[in-house]
Amino acid sequence: MATGHTDPQRRERILAATLDLIADEGVAGVSHRKIAARAGVPLGSMTYHFSGIDQLLREAFRRFTDHVVSLFDAHLAAPADRDQARAAVADLIDALSEGSRRDLVLTQELYTLAARQPSYRELTHAWMARSRAHLEKHFDPDTARQLDALIEGLALHRALDREPGDRALTLEAVTRITSPTRRTR
Amino acid sequence: MATGHTDPQRRERILAATLDLIADEGVAGVSHRKIAARAGVPLGSMTYHFSGIDQLLREAFRRFTDHVVSLFDAHLAAPADRDQARAAVADLIDALSEGSRRDLVLTQELYTLAARQPSYRELTHAWMARSRAHLEKHFDPDTARQLDALIEGLALHRALDREPGDRALTLEAVTRITSPTRRTR
Repeated sequence: MATGHTDPQRRERILAATLDLIADEGVAGVSHRKIAARAGVPLGSMTYHFSGIDQLLREAFRRFTDHVVSLFDAHLAAPADRDQARAAVADLIDALSEGSRRDLVLTQELYTLAARQPSYRELTHAWMARSRAHLEKHFDPDTARQLDALIEGLALHRALDREPGDRALTLEAVTRITSPTRRTR
Repeated sequence: MATGHTDPQRRERILAATLDLIADEGVAGVSHRKIAARAGVPLGSMTYHFSGIDQLLREAFRRFTDHVVSLFDAHLAAPADRDQARAAVADLIDALSEGSRRDLVLTQELYTLAARQPSYRELTHAWMARSRAHLEKHFDPDTARQLDALIEGLALHRALDREPGDRALTLEAVTRITSPTRRTR
């Protein structure tokens, strides 16, 4: 049984425990000691695998954004005509807003960290670039940018809302934002 | 000089100090002791004015949402035709995304709190209802709801972005989301 420093699962366990701890207590509650206890690893293996809290936060949040980007990939990978792509985006917004409270909290924790400390914005930039790349399979770059912002706002508002999301309204919003208008009207 | 328990400015100073502390250290860092020191009031006056941290957080964040709603009011109070209203919304998004880092952090801290503890969602519900009421002066309720989500997403993405916001792209997004489409196309 490989349980030493070279156990590849140990590194993964530490990252998973970091995200669990952030979901429960926030970035402010993170410490080597608490993560080691949660991951069931000796305190010494924390500094063996990670240079410090900063590297831990970056790698843990990168793992989390991988998970959200995989939702974009799952909904948007297949070839689709314009209306199929719009329906796929509405499905994606359903999935994002009806996801776990853990995902909602981790998303907001990452944005809070990036808002407070600009050095963490490389994480949110990379995340947005990957989301938009998936949207650009179906829409032009400017539309993908606008649509990405709409997805963000709708997923957040729907997740925090009292009533369940209105699918027809979501699809209408996606249709509108992906329908070019004439400049003057 | 009124400096006792009945000093009305003392209550205001405590709420302002609470928001300053949240902006710097996050909701997790809030304590009676730290707020009292920051506000320059005796520790005893904290419990005189507020029943506990929960009431303090609620009143402080309500003050903060009053401030953001006042931006909606400033941009949307005047009568406007459809294109003027769209331009006013684009101006509002500029103001929100180019606002202070403090406002950006406080917004994300409130969403994180509401995501983690549903009992705080009455704050975000009341906030969204007030934002939408301002938008409904110019747009139908369904459009106001979609537009509110777009404003949220664009303001966040632009605030975290590397490049300054593109005004033409923002106005185009607002125009699209406020232009009804035919159901089938």
